[in-house]
Amino acid sequence: MTETTIAPDVAALDAADPLAPFRDRFHLREGLIYLDGNSLGALPKATVGRLAEVIGGEWGEGLITSWLGAQWSTAPRRIGDKIGRLIGAKAGEIVATDSTSVNIFKAITAALSLRRDRSVILSETTNFPTDIYMMQGVEAFSGGRVKAVTVAPDDIVAALTDDVAVLLLTQVHYKSGRVRDMAEITRAAHEAGALIVWDLSHSAGAIPVDLNGANADFAVGCGYKYLNGGPGAPAYLFAASRHHRAAPVLSGWFGHARPFAFEEDYDPAAGIERFQCGTPPVLGLSALEVGIDLILEADMSEIRRKSLALGDLFIERMTPLCDAYGFALASVRDHAERGSQVAYAHLQGYQIVQALKEYDVIADFRAPDILRFGLTPLYLRYADIIETVRRIERVCVTRAWDKPQYHQRAAVT
Amino acid sequence: MTETTIAPDVAALDAADPLAPFRDRFHLREGLIYLDGNSLGALPKATVGRLAEVIGGEWGEGLITSWLGAQWSTAPRRIGDKIGRLIGAKAGEIVATDSTSVNIFKAITAALSLRRDRSVILSETTNFPTDIYMMQGVEAFSGGRVKAVTVAPDDIVAALTDDVAVLLLTQVHYKSGRVRDMAEITRAAHEAGALIVWDLSHSAGAIPVDLNGANADFAVGCGYKYLNGGPGAPAYLFAASRHHRAAPVLSGWFGHARPFAFEEDYDPAAGIERFQCGTPPVLGLSALEVGIDLILEADMSEIRRKSLALGDLFIERMTPLCDAYGFALASVRDHAERGSQVAYAHLQGYQIVQALKEYDVIADFRAPDILRFGLTPLYLRYADIIETVRRIERVCVTRAWDKPQYHQRAAVT
Repeated sequence: MTETTIAPDVAALDAADPLAPFRDRFHLREGLIYLDGNSLGALPKATVGRLAEVIGGEWGEGLITSWLGAQWSTAPRRIGDKIGRLIGAKAGEIVATDSTSVNIFKAITAALSLRRDRSVILSETTNFPTDIYMMQGVEAFSGGRVKAVTVAPDDIVAALTDDVAVLLLTQVHYKSGRVRDMAEITRAAHEAGALIVWDLSHSAGAIPVDLNGANADFAVGCGYKYLNGGPGAPAYLFAASRHHRAAPVLSGWFGHARPFAFEEDYDPAAGIERFQCGTPPVLGLSALEVGIDLILEADMSEIRRKSLALGDLFIERMTPLCDAYGFALASVRDHAERGSQVAYAHLQGYQIVQALKEYDVIADFRAPDILRFGLTPLYLRYADIIETVRRIERVCVTRAWDKPQYHQRAAVT
Repeated sequence: MTETTIAPDVAALDAADPLAPFRDRFHLREGLIYLDGNSLGALPKATVGRLAEVIGGEWGEGLITSWLGAQWSTAPRRIGDKIGRLIGAKAGEIVATDSTSVNIFKAITAALSLRRDRSVILSETTNFPTDIYMMQGVEAFSGGRVKAVTVAPDDIVAALTDDVAVLLLTQVHYKSGRVRDMAEITRAAHEAGALIVWDLSHSAGAIPVDLNGANADFAVGCGYKYLNGGPGAPAYLFAASRHHRAAPVLSGWFGHARPFAFEEDYDPAAGIERFQCGTPPVLGLSALEVGIDLILEADMSEIRRKSLALGDLFIERMTPLCDAYGFALASVRDHAERGSQVAYAHLQGYQIVQALKEYDVIADFRAPDILRFGLTPLYLRYADIIETVRRIERVCVTRAWDKPQYHQRAAVT
């Protein structure tokens, strides 16, 4: 921390924090307050050595033999199983591979193959754009057979008509951080005869998730946010074991039952491996695995507890600034519906996020007016929250943004 | 080299080799003869330091700001442009991203969108399996609209009927190393009204390629063979600039004209960027770029000249072993049709490749009976070829594989 002293009550929170030792496992520049771990997670110190070993040893020395010798071939499944422990999947229900967008394509086309008598892919208008774009790509390619439909967030359940094949939803909203009730919405989708694909990009590693407890069908998510897998890390795909007969449209050789038999016809692997496509991205997977191994050392309920406590403290200390400088809380206060971030709307949101960089605070701006503060309990301290609010205030005082423009604004969803 | 002395004429070849200095730019274990660079290229020494910088500096220190600050966002295009210099593409015609399999899907569906009145994707039966599998996935998803057809290698041109929308061919065959005449076949495809997708996985960095000289439409290729990009390196996709209006089916956010505007509707980027999909895999791209920068320092015509000379020497020295131990050359001798590998058929091919490992020679086996020897002029010496043949002979003498079973066998294609 710089300059200021922290009140004894906040210092006590950090002193009593069971997750406090994890901070030292990350590379974090002195003085920086990083509130963008929900966009790109911080670097685990262990990643540096592990990647040096993979590059110099496994690749440099082992060369081609490392596909078996260093177990590169099975990395997507092995890492998938580890992710499964974080989000309530069984072993053999997840592969780590490709990008979230590509995995969305796989999941929605697999779901469509299981609901051939239905034609609609449903989502909400404010879903993360790539989710919607991938739906639109499937529609365009389908030659009129499939329709991509988006409705307002609160109209989802009502829109589950009997032509909906698959519902694609993000559990934690990327702007507001609002959490969907996975079990309840999955049940509604199933009652309507539809399948569901959950995007867990802002969930995994941030909040407890129980895919099988909710009876989810498919899920996808990215590796570079709360899983700390590195920039553009491989994503993952979950398919409930009952859906492993679904046809992969992206039927590449790593999804084949016998990829190294070089057969002429595609014969998908019996299990989750069929949702692989091309050659696994070994460097990215190796970095991802370090991040996941690290978070598996922590207790997810402790992560959730601290995340909410950090958020509560942030909201409490921001309250005077809302009145004085025109911030409006854009996240819900209710714990059940709040993910691991707090968002505020402000007309000068973009400028404030830029100005905060000069004070060594990295947050995120999402158009048109959202300041997004990611809360990553493994490497954030309560003292960082206090200091963040102080620096926000300093920015506002300096720049004189003193008009409370957003007081009447509803929470962004 | 171990044990043996090399004849003066071969030593002179290495002494006069203008590419000889490149060998020291790679990490190569002493004593090992690595003839599998067409499966996984060797590690450039510079990759170690570059990845340490990307991980520790750009990710660890720069965090989210490196998307712009370290130019992560534009890496797929920047690296694509560099690949373009190796294979005859203009700047802005290639992106490096995703796997070869995923890029095959993008290329064939883009081609289909430009030939909506035609229904056939054509390829050859012995194409690399993932190429065919991806075609079969498109067919399965199309609901009867698209048909994946494969014919024998020599029947391709005759099969270019007026229902063929797109021809998917690999330029250099993965088993035999036989080279297709890109200009001639592209012309035949165009005369038949079809578009062509070239798989350059065994071409780029191995033989001179001139995509625009041949008037090619689309191309894909992998980064981990002759480009030395590392295990599971990102692949690349070429789309001739005249085809940048084609609709990407994998319409992810990184292909959007304004990805960070978070708009609700997909609006593809005007240029090659539309063929991106998800978030770029930064670690893999960074390693790939080192490999490409290295090969760009060499003269591609020198690479080709040495590759053929290595192959000629290998074939010459193997001739006595063919008679004595039952190897049959499975590559063509003719330079115009031979890629950067030499293949032999042998009934005990699998066992021989395994036994060679004990003599520190790494080659590759491809079912049912092909021994594949990859020739990588940047880090192989003429002396390595001589020593390889000696070690093969030692294996044969020891194991007494002395029946010449394959003398009548035709070249594998």
